[in-house]
Amino acid sequence: MAKTILKSVFHQGNFCDILISNKRFAKIGGLTPKDYEKAKVVDCNGLAILPPFYNGHCHAAMTLLRGYADDMPLQEWLQNHIWPFEGKMKPKDIEIGSRLAILEMIKSGTVFFADMYWHREQTMKVVKEMGIRATIGVTFAEGLVPQEAIENNFKFLRDHKFESDRVALAVMPHSPYMVGEKLFKRCAQVAREEEMILHTHLAETKKEVADCKKQYGCTPVELMDRYGVLGGNFVAAHCVHMNQDDMAMMAESCSAAILNPCSNLKLCSGIPKIPKMLESGMLVGIGTDGASSNNNLDMHEEMKLTSLLTKVSSSAEKLPAGEVLKMATSNVAIAYGIPAGVIAEGFLADALLVDLKNERLNPCHNLVSNWVYAADSSSIHSVLCNGQFVMENHHVDGEEDIVREAELCAKRLA
Amino acid sequence: MAKTILKSVFHQGNFCDILISNKRFAKIGGLTPKDYEKAKVVDCNGLAILPPFYNGHCHAAMTLLRGYADDMPLQEWLQNHIWPFEGKMKPKDIEIGSRLAILEMIKSGTVFFADMYWHREQTMKVVKEMGIRATIGVTFAEGLVPQEAIENNFKFLRDHKFESDRVALAVMPHSPYMVGEKLFKRCAQVAREEEMILHTHLAETKKEVADCKKQYGCTPVELMDRYGVLGGNFVAAHCVHMNQDDMAMMAESCSAAILNPCSNLKLCSGIPKIPKMLESGMLVGIGTDGASSNNNLDMHEEMKLTSLLTKVSSSAEKLPAGEVLKMATSNVAIAYGIPAGVIAEGFLADALLVDLKNERLNPCHNLVSNWVYAADSSSIHSVLCNGQFVMENHHVDGEEDIVREAELCAKRLA
Repeated sequence: MAKTILKSVFHQGNFCDILISNKRFAKIGGLTPKDYEKAKVVDCNGLAILPPFYNGHCHAAMTLLRGYADDMPLQEWLQNHIWPFEGKMKPKDIEIGSRLAILEMIKSGTVFFADMYWHREQTMKVVKEMGIRATIGVTFAEGLVPQEAIENNFKFLRDHKFESDRVALAVMPHSPYMVGEKLFKRCAQVAREEEMILHTHLAETKKEVADCKKQYGCTPVELMDRYGVLGGNFVAAHCVHMNQDDMAMMAESCSAAILNPCSNLKLCSGIPKIPKMLESGMLVGIGTDGASSNNNLDMHEEMKLTSLLTKVSSSAEKLPAGEVLKMATSNVAIAYGIPAGVIAEGFLADALLVDLKNERLNPCHNLVSNWVYAADSSSIHSVLCNGQFVMENHHVDGEEDIVREAELCAKRLA
Repeated sequence: MAKTILKSVFHQGNFCDILISNKRFAKIGGLTPKDYEKAKVVDCNGLAILPPFYNGHCHAAMTLLRGYADDMPLQEWLQNHIWPFEGKMKPKDIEIGSRLAILEMIKSGTVFFADMYWHREQTMKVVKEMGIRATIGVTFAEGLVPQEAIENNFKFLRDHKFESDRVALAVMPHSPYMVGEKLFKRCAQVAREEEMILHTHLAETKKEVADCKKQYGCTPVELMDRYGVLGGNFVAAHCVHMNQDDMAMMAESCSAAILNPCSNLKLCSGIPKIPKMLESGMLVGIGTDGASSNNNLDMHEEMKLTSLLTKVSSSAEKLPAGEVLKMATSNVAIAYGIPAGVIAEGFLADALLVDLKNERLNPCHNLVSNWVYAADSSSIHSVLCNGQFVMENHHVDGEEDIVREAELCAKRLA
């Protein structure tokens, strides 16, 4: 059984040794001489341990479209730029794009992402290879794919369920406006039977809510309730335009919401009502959305933006630093059913080591405040996932090749 | 005459050689063999040149208070935490805090800041030593300082006017609520006579505007007009709560506004009406405010936030990437009368060299979009100010000592 000891790491105000064993934090301090036997000891002098980020909503391979089209109305952006580019993407391109996305996530401190896209086999392959976690969606969108593909989707979900301890599959109907009642209900049933997460876009724009009311006579959340989708395995992305009743239904059913504030602002979808969402008691996490509308996968940026938007729409004392940190870490892990996101005994050994000498973490009156409000990726020294280092001393294996290949691929497609 | 050549640097879609001579960009491409004689040639293979940031409003030494108090109402924050800490700060502490601030600014790509604080001699000294630019305020705040200090302020302004080609002095009455009519008018007169910038906090909170209307029967901008302050040398910070008439007066008088969106959101002061401000034709730049309310001095963060807030309050196509970049670079330089902020012949040789292999700058469909929407400080390879390197290959001379000294100083004061 492989053992790693993080020696003299700064944790919650003290320096201590941390034992990682069997992919989990086995001991936080209080190690005995026996613990050091046959252990790999990593000197963490000058480094603090913090929970890494869990990205609750992403379209990883779209990183190939970063900066391809910006600053234009939604329909022009989608129809004249994004969709034609995506139409040319082959499975190999998805692999290359996912690899760039995962590199960027690791370098900015993220060890998990929930992905809704096409050619999931390629993304799964790259996640396994690069050492982080993901919940990979099998995506449903009626009209875009033939009926045969839909049946293949359900077969794939059953066949690949237990493929890796770091990769889970999830049922991802794109949205209530891209998936009709019958298929949505079937998705929900399969998710329940297979004990999988069901993830969808929900209440992202005012137009979506207005269209839903016109077509179904109810809000998107009410429609989810009608379909029997709400529950502990339901995770909705965006959730910009929910009313108080929607929020109460989400909270009571133990459904989770993933905010993507940067994308929502950039595409002019709106500002989510974060104080009300938090008051409702619902589980709220954070994600980045895809790099074509963000234009990065930096969870730290989303975390700080979530904090700022909450404060300006309520009061300066709302959502203290430690609370918004949870929204970007453990809340997402909880939503996706992963026992991780805190540095605590028994939890999966995912962690960041941040450089206490970084200028943004100084002076250090309060490390959590500095991390949430002042830091950027430059302070992230190393990243651990599942007890293994996926970045050491600011470097990810093969990063130069990953970037070069993505650049060539994007040029070919553009 | 010292000459530097940036060789094979990526500039506006092409690789070219750039000649820097006598602190200015002498030639962008088209160099002759004679230009290379006795020049220091810097290989810029894989690097792009971009304008650096100009921070339009800052309280540099307050970086010592980073994370000292957060997430509380304004008055509790100021009276119970910030002011008691500041009360203990001696000139030497200002020097140490300013040095940490300037280190952070350089590392995040900023070569200029406008500073409103106390003990300006110390901040001036550190700016000269570290190689960047600043407009340093001589700060006026009635009640806080004796009459003698006010007279000393005016003397200091005259005596130190031409001390350095990188440091300018400016007249900085704190705000219309901290400086009365008589002194404010005298500040304005001295600024005009000495051809100096006059900088003040203006229309930051709703309460400030309401109090002003109650006391003077007009808005803060109207009060500035009444005092004869508006004009090409007037730069107002924050400007969150201006009405259409205020904006028109600012625009017509060629006054400039500096937005500090991060601080305004975090302290729940409000969201500035950026689309209306831009429509009014007024000159709008960006600043960071102090690190006690931000909690960093990262102009890139402010730039992206300005873009997002503009889009969400108007439409996705408003304020394209290149326009918001100007707000964080040349607009601020223009406001403070510095011929810099663009990479163009004749302008002062201030620049960033960014690493084109950084994962966030790839794929490179559009470098300006990637820089504005996707990058963070990790992509900044080197920083030039006044034709000199102030950061080379991610490293600033003496940075470890600067951080260590600031940490010790803050511990002593806390």
